[in-house]
Amino acid sequence: MSRLVAAVVAAVMLVVGYFHVAEPVRAAEPLRYVLTNTEDGTWLDTFDLTAADVPGGAGEGWRVRKETLRGGVQDGIDLITLDNGSLSVRVVPTRGMSIVDVRQGDFRLGWESPVKELVHPSLINLESRGGLGWLQGFNEWMVRCGLEFAGHPGTDEVVDNTGATSSVPLTLHGRIGNLPASRVELLIEREPPYRLRLRGVVHERWFMGAKLELATEISTEPGSDTLRIEDAVTNRGGTPQEFQLIYHANYGAPLLEENATVVTAAKRIAPMNEHAAKTIDAFANYRGPTAGFVEEVFLVWPYADDEGRARVMLQDAAGERAASIQWSIDELPYLTIWKNTAATEDGYVTGLEPATGFPFNRGVERAAGRVSTLAAGETRQFTLEFGLHQGREAVAKHAAAIAAIQNGRPTVIDDTPPVE
Amino acid sequence: MSRLVAAVVAAVMLVVGYFHVAEPVRAAEPLRYVLTNTEDGTWLDTFDLTAADVPGGAGEGWRVRKETLRGGVQDGIDLITLDNGSLSVRVVPTRGMSIVDVRQGDFRLGWESPVKELVHPSLINLESRGGLGWLQGFNEWMVRCGLEFAGHPGTDEVVDNTGATSSVPLTLHGRIGNLPASRVELLIEREPPYRLRLRGVVHERWFMGAKLELATEISTEPGSDTLRIEDAVTNRGGTPQEFQLIYHANYGAPLLEENATVVTAAKRIAPMNEHAAKTIDAFANYRGPTAGFVEEVFLVWPYADDEGRARVMLQDAAGERAASIQWSIDELPYLTIWKNTAATEDGYVTGLEPATGFPFNRGVERAAGRVSTLAAGETRQFTLEFGLHQGREAVAKHAAAIAAIQNGRPTVIDDTPPVE
Amino acid sequence: MSRLVAAVVAAVMLVVGYFHVAEPVRAAEPLRYVLTNTEDGTWLDTFDLTAADVPGGAGEGWRVRKETLRGGVQDGIDLITLDNGSLSVRVVPTRGMSIVDVRQGDFRLGWESPVKELVHPSLINLESRGGLGWLQGFNEWMVRCGLEFAGHPGTDEVVDNTGATSSVPLTLHGRIGNLPASRVELLIEREPPYRLRLRGVVHERWFMGAKLELATEISTEPGSDTLRIEDAVTNRGGTPQEFQLIYHANYGAPLLEENATVVTAAKRIAPMNEHAAKTIDAFANYRGPTAGFVEEVFLVWPYADDEGRARVMLQDAAGERAASIQWSIDELPYLTIWKNTAATEDGYVTGLEPATGFPFNRGVERAAGRVSTLAAGETRQFTLEFGLHQGREAVAKHAAAIAAIQNGRPTVIDDTPPVE
Repeated sequence: MSRLVAAVVAAVMLVVGYFHVAEPVRAAEPLRYVLTNTEDGTWLDTFDLTAADVPGGAGEGWRVRKETLRGGVQDGIDLITLDNGSLSVRVVPTRGMSIVDVRQGDFRLGWESPVKELVHPSLINLESRGGLGWLQGFNEWMVRCGLEFAGHPGTDEVVDNTGATSSVPLTLHGRIGNLPASRVELLIEREPPYRLRLRGVVHERWFMGAKLELATEISTEPGSDTLRIEDAVTNRGGTPQEFQLIYHANYGAPLLEENATVVTAAKRIAPMNEHAAKTIDAFANYRGPTAGFVEEVFLVWPYADDEGRARVMLQDAAGERAASIQWSIDELPYLTIWKNTAATEDGYVTGLEPATGFPFNRGVERAAGRVSTLAAGETRQFTLEFGLHQGREAVAKHAAAIAAIQNGRPTVIDDTPPVE
Repeated sequence: MSRLVAAVVAAVMLVVGYFHVAEPVRAAEPLRYVLTNTEDGTWLDTFDLTAADVPGGAGEGWRVRKETLRGGVQDGIDLITLDNGSLSVRVVPTRGMSIVDVRQGDFRLGWESPVKELVHPSLINLESRGGLGWLQGFNEWMVRCGLEFAGHPGTDEVVDNTGATSSVPLTLHGRIGNLPASRVELLIEREPPYRLRLRGVVHERWFMGAKLELATEISTEPGSDTLRIEDAVTNRGGTPQEFQLIYHANYGAPLLEENATVVTAAKRIAPMNEHAAKTIDAFANYRGPTAGFVEEVFLVWPYADDEGRARVMLQDAAGERAASIQWSIDELPYLTIWKNTAATEDGYVTGLEPATGFPFNRGVERAAGRVSTLAAGETRQFTLEFGLHQGREAVAKHAAAIAAIQNGRPTVIDDTPPVE
Repeated sequence: MSRLVAAVVAAVMLVVGYFHVAEPVRAAEPLRYVLTNTEDGTWLDTFDLTAADVPGGAGEGWRVRKETLRGGVQDGIDLITLDNGSLSVRVVPTRGMSIVDVRQGDFRLGWESPVKELVHPSLINLESRGGLGWLQGFNEWMVRCGLEFAGHPGTDEVVDNTGATSSVPLTLHGRIGNLPASRVELLIEREPPYRLRLRGVVHERWFMGAKLELATEISTEPGSDTLRIEDAVTNRGGTPQEFQLIYHANYGAPLLEENATVVTAAKRIAPMNEHAAKTIDAFANYRGPTAGFVEEVFLVWPYADDEGRARVMLQDAAGERAASIQWSIDELPYLTIWKNTAATEDGYVTGLEPATGFPFNRGVERAAGRVSTLAAGETRQFTLEFGLHQGREAVAKHAAAIAAIQNGRPTVIDDTPPVE
């Protein structure tokens, strides 16, 4: 039936396209399949579309499926698998359009969290355990932290419904990762390279609070080994609104292993706390799984290339496989490296986290000048490219590109946490 | 299939009616359609019944539909549209039998909250942000606040499971608006004017806490322009139980606009806080949408007519359209006027709120003698009539009726908030 | 369709069994029906299997059904009825494999909570009302309290994500009773007495927190009047983990009544607080329903028989009916007797609670040496037998068995609560 729905939608789109073709040299409109739209009640329990299903053709080898999970704490979760023929990307609209993992053959971006199931937001209490409830559902490869606030729990001041300033507890990493998408659609370009675009809109809104909208596009080209995330965050409220955004991308074994390294071009690196200060000299090197390991967090002020692009890469011990992120330093000026090389059973993982700031509590971030504000109606764009690099040559080539950004410029390494 | 279900239920009801007709001059039993009953597992995903479907006839022009919403934060919400042929009323059993809006052609009772979707209670954490979580789902025209407590968040004393008195945080406006109805049924009178009655039962109960039941009937006559709410609140516990109840009826544009006015007959009017005190002289007049506007709340001790009926009306600037509420002063002795003429994007709205008290925290209300107690098994009734008035003449007529209640009696206007 | 599914599964199992029969004298593999498995997406909305459905036969008279509840606060709850032909046991996988009740004709283990519906965990906020949210869903006959913590709410110290020790609020009786099972399966022995085994696996896991697994088996033999619970609690984390476990078995009218008594063999009995101290001499006797009654909790250090088995029994005033529990004193060294003989409307009930400790806050329990720790990967087993005894002779026989455990040994009765 999902095929039927898809075909009907495609037919409708062709008709829509027909009326648009009036402009002479205009490219064809992309095919558009609506999977969820709360405004008109659209919801598909399942969906399945392959390159061969597209009328007129749109590349080959790819497939997009949706399923709705049942049972346990995952009951009601929807999961979309976007397979470009080379990369297979699993996206969870129900959990803020987070990305579970990316697979290329036996190479996987992702990690083994002790939380095995995708957890439905209705079962998460962000306030629990002193504001650490977010950790009850933390297992995706890439989860956004934000939008009204991100970072560590703790009290911060807000304006309440009476106009008074009151001190309220903020919860770890905010709400956006535990809010279901209100709109989900798949777009397929009609022209080569037939880019596949999965779009989602998630609203983080309160009456008397932030009205922030995340419109994300997760896209890839058939057969390619890169994934692009293009996000737009908009203040839908009538007054200025602070926001914070961290791209919490998490990597586990086998890419993460003893002697794996993180490669970046940095202007400055600082430990987040006294504990991390002890190992600041080894910040680029990873240990194997270590029972009782306490997280070490390093704060990075990255260098960018002439086009303002920053990069970070995690490579395995042998330099044969790596995963990289590229992004704009203007959009995301800070990078956090989170090392959590705990026992395998407790979650052996590292986070590479380009962000608008560092993961201190919002009060600390504001004082340090790292909290941005959106005017009423204003939109801010964020684009990140995620790559997989297989083979010694490919890894070395990307490492060289990062070295070229550093280009001999100095890196200041702080012995102590920032005083802020 | 819903039609089929309805027909079968109707047939069953006719049979039931047959056995009841033994009494000679007794009126026919109303038709009864059960949409939800958790006791026997009745649940209809959809329902659709029109006047023409009723065996033997029951007026004309009306239609009652139910749908179950999917996707986003509204996933699983059930929504009933009760259309009497003139008024179309949308009720949300999943959210405590709140009323989304009432439409009469292009005239709508309701408002545009920045929270656009109906939010499933499972995604609301009433405790969040210092007890303001209720605001994450606030967008209906009429929502009840209560029942164990209503009003502002803050600590109050309760008796815990060990019999000890402990201080616990109460959350804004209580739980009743975020509890799904356990029973929902539609009754249709067999005699003219064939009143349509939508009934719902919502339980707000704890072990070691309040056991309060709300049994609501939302009713209207085919073709009429009034809506009646008849609520019964019962203490199902074995010991006396405090309760609070606010009818939070909310009106936005276009009825609310610059120079719109609120009309009432008042014995006394006071500002709720120092901020509202500044504009107490203009309490009856509204501003247009104003970015950064901070809510102004006014407390009203209404006058009633000889039959104990109080009234309040909101009219547009031109006096061409108005919406009114009538209620019993014995049942609901207090009225709160909540002015929130913020930017359109932030929710431009005013609340007219007949209640058992004012929206201070329960501790304050108790000290002021405005918290009622129900004995074990006791029931309290509340009846409100909501009207729509179109045309200068109709509006003026209703304004005159309110003036007749005031009847020259004095209104005391306080310059400062009550000291309590 | 559930029958069809069952038949297909059975057929598959027979084939699987075929390959296993290679070992000559091995007993046949039990039939296995998977109702829920989140790993492969198995979920049955309904299920229905009787003795007659089993290929080759497996006793007679029994039936196992599953339904999924709709509407109200029970929407989405799954409920399994395991009827052995004599006892009918209702189990709720969605609520941590708790047991709603056990019926034998008109004899029922269970109670009438003021909370009438089974409440879906997504609607429970354990943190609410100062950590008493668990009471919003408390109505089952047998609910486990635990696993990371059980007992009274209050602050205790935990290690947070940064490795720091922080003081966080623990909630009443922990999370395990409000977590849906991730795997549910029914096993039926192929050999007499054809024991029916309902298994469930519930994960209580956090990233940066406990990773505890409950694997329960609720089993009974066709036609018998006993029920066995065999639980295995495993630490799936990589470091040692504290845990607490209370079997909160609750009994109401008519078994509980004025002059009903609790029978046990005790080394020591103490009141939990000053309030209970007042009635310590009457700890074994129950009052009738009493409006305003404040719970009385008694702490018992039980004696065991030569095989290390402890017993407790609740019998009615006439000594004609009783319900008993047997368990291993090594597994569960403590017993709590919770008397809550409140008004019928408020929940007239007593709890007999074998446990790893007493229901003080974990901080108190740790200081008293009653909190156990599981090493990484370690499993602890718990086995309890629940019996129904009808007829004066059967009751007297069980009372004699308990007296034989006491065997004249002294019971120390404390006048005051333990100082700890």
